[in-house]
Amino acid sequence: MLIMGKNVAVLGAGSWGSVLANVLVENGHQVELWTYKTPQADEINSQHTNNKYIKDYYFSEKLHATTDMDAALDGVDVVLFVVPTKAIREISVQVCDILRDKNNAPLIVHASKGLELKTYKRVSQIIDEEIPSGYRSGIVALSGPSHAEEVAHHDLTLITAASEDLDAAKEVQKLFMNNYLRIYTNPDLLGVELGAAFKNIIALGAGALHGLGFGDDAKAALMTRGLAEISRLGVAFGADPLTFIGLSGVGDLVVTCTSVHSRNWRAGDQLGSGKKLPDVIADMGMVIEGINTTQAAYELSQEKQIDMPITEAIYNVLYRGADIKEEVGGLMTREGKSEEIAQNMVD
Amino acid sequence: MLIMGKNVAVLGAGSWGSVLANVLVENGHQVELWTYKTPQADEINSQHTNNKYIKDYYFSEKLHATTDMDAALDGVDVVLFVVPTKAIREISVQVCDILRDKNNAPLIVHASKGLELKTYKRVSQIIDEEIPSGYRSGIVALSGPSHAEEVAHHDLTLITAASEDLDAAKEVQKLFMNNYLRIYTNPDLLGVELGAAFKNIIALGAGALHGLGFGDDAKAALMTRGLAEISRLGVAFGADPLTFIGLSGVGDLVVTCTSVHSRNWRAGDQLGSGKKLPDVIADMGMVIEGINTTQAAYELSQEKQIDMPITEAIYNVLYRGADIKEEVGGLMTREGKSEEIAQNMVD
Repeated sequence: MLIMGKNVAVLGAGSWGSVLANVLVENGHQVELWTYKTPQADEINSQHTNNKYIKDYYFSEKLHATTDMDAALDGVDVVLFVVPTKAIREISVQVCDILRDKNNAPLIVHASKGLELKTYKRVSQIIDEEIPSGYRSGIVALSGPSHAEEVAHHDLTLITAASEDLDAAKEVQKLFMNNYLRIYTNPDLLGVELGAAFKNIIALGAGALHGLGFGDDAKAALMTRGLAEISRLGVAFGADPLTFIGLSGVGDLVVTCTSVHSRNWRAGDQLGSGKKLPDVIADMGMVIEGINTTQAAYELSQEKQIDMPITEAIYNVLYRGADIKEEVGGLMTREGKSEEIAQNMVD
Repeated sequence: MLIMGKNVAVLGAGSWGSVLANVLVENGHQVELWTYKTPQADEINSQHTNNKYIKDYYFSEKLHATTDMDAALDGVDVVLFVVPTKAIREISVQVCDILRDKNNAPLIVHASKGLELKTYKRVSQIIDEEIPSGYRSGIVALSGPSHAEEVAHHDLTLITAASEDLDAAKEVQKLFMNNYLRIYTNPDLLGVELGAAFKNIIALGAGALHGLGFGDDAKAALMTRGLAEISRLGVAFGADPLTFIGLSGVGDLVVTCTSVHSRNWRAGDQLGSGKKLPDVIADMGMVIEGINTTQAAYELSQEKQIDMPITEAIYNVLYRGADIKEEVGGLMTREGKSEEIAQNMVD
């Protein structure tokens, strides 16, 4: 069977964007990798490296980078967004203008995790708001436990392609699947996107426990009870509870909470060790997604009257100056609970 | 409020048994810790240590050990079994004889994980078969992510007390709960016991991936898909799917699969590194519970016609001499799946 290569534009050349672009090239597709940084595009095209984001790795010579978004989007079948959540709306506006000019309606995929500041909107909602359905086909989210470095080196990785449009999800599955990257489709786009965002709260908490000197039991308990409460919140917004046991839920949670490379985990670790929040933020020098997501989840839980004791404790530390040790103590001395009732995510 | 101390016999003075006995002493109960080894009982009583099982730790001077089971069971309100699964039936017979002589019907608790060889019976089933209801009240299983060392040092630990008898579970919750050990009740005794046993299969697999040189993505994927398949099997036997997202499910899975102290993980790691099964078993010098549980789960899955590709791959390696790399390759090259369908634990 002859599989025809697709024309794909990948927007964003960070570690995950450049590695996903390389996967597509290895799978036989024609890929344009867009970045706004000219030296980075030059480096990728001439040296086949992207050293600021992924060290000592050589990309396929067939991978081509460009700073010209118009050219990148010319005749594309698929557009893959891998930019920070805060840039999604602005880039979507640019993409929409170009697609309108070209009268093209490609499949849209994104691999960004987080909620928009203030509006708490999901990435697919922002794209849907900015790119009308006349200039795109389905919207698919890629999510799951994945270190860019491991995918680059052909380690085994399993991720989810989520979409309300099953055909679109299946097309993305075909596009990416090979002998080191395995894709599962999932119709619960909302649940996948919320899980990907909320898990960073639990990663902050897991880091904080480590910083406070607690061990594996406490971490496992926090992950379990944390998963239960972010699932409750997601279900209140219409997510399928089973999504939270899947790759984008427990799978991603495991990778984020047990890897010292996670920015959110490291921020929590520093808070637990006694460092002040402004110093943690200043030292990190990058957005700590979980800090904003904690506020989002806390406010959403108040709105929906969902009990989220772990999120509330982290919120109290981040936004109300509460003492982190006292908050942990408070969690432990709550009244004895039934796991069934506390866990019942449908009620 | 005056809380009356209970009389408790703890049977089995390994690391977990001796630490749980010490927790009960710290909570104000009268405890007799039974072991069949005289030197061990003497060490606990005179030096307040149990060095073979938990190094450099001093137990409460109020903890008393004995080799006299008859004396240990005299006037008890609660009997806690913490012996290996293979010894549960024999010890239950002894306990039954003594309780009949004393005409006493205490609450029975166990903290053992595994299924009986050949019969594949759960621990509470064995106890139920050997101790008639006239000589006991409810049966409760304690399970969850817990390293004995961490509980001993008052690290935070959350575990489940599962029983079909809610009052019995609540009594156990009261007995153990304090400011470092938090107990959640759960009515799904079957699901808790099956999860505790089956998770060792996934721990073997996680170790094997490590031994083969795979990374965090592969481990997280294995844990997620492994959790889905052991849940499917449990649900086929009547377990509540939510139990597998709880402390005794995902919580215990996280601790077992991410700790190099897990015997099952280490056995898998050695297999993945190319060591032969008989050598792994010989070197370990202790029962590797996951090896027997893999056979049990495989046969049960055949009986119930449940798809368990990970368990089957591990079974093929352990019992059919299959090549471990080929089995992993086989898992990755299966047809693309929907996460929803693969995950649907109720079908």
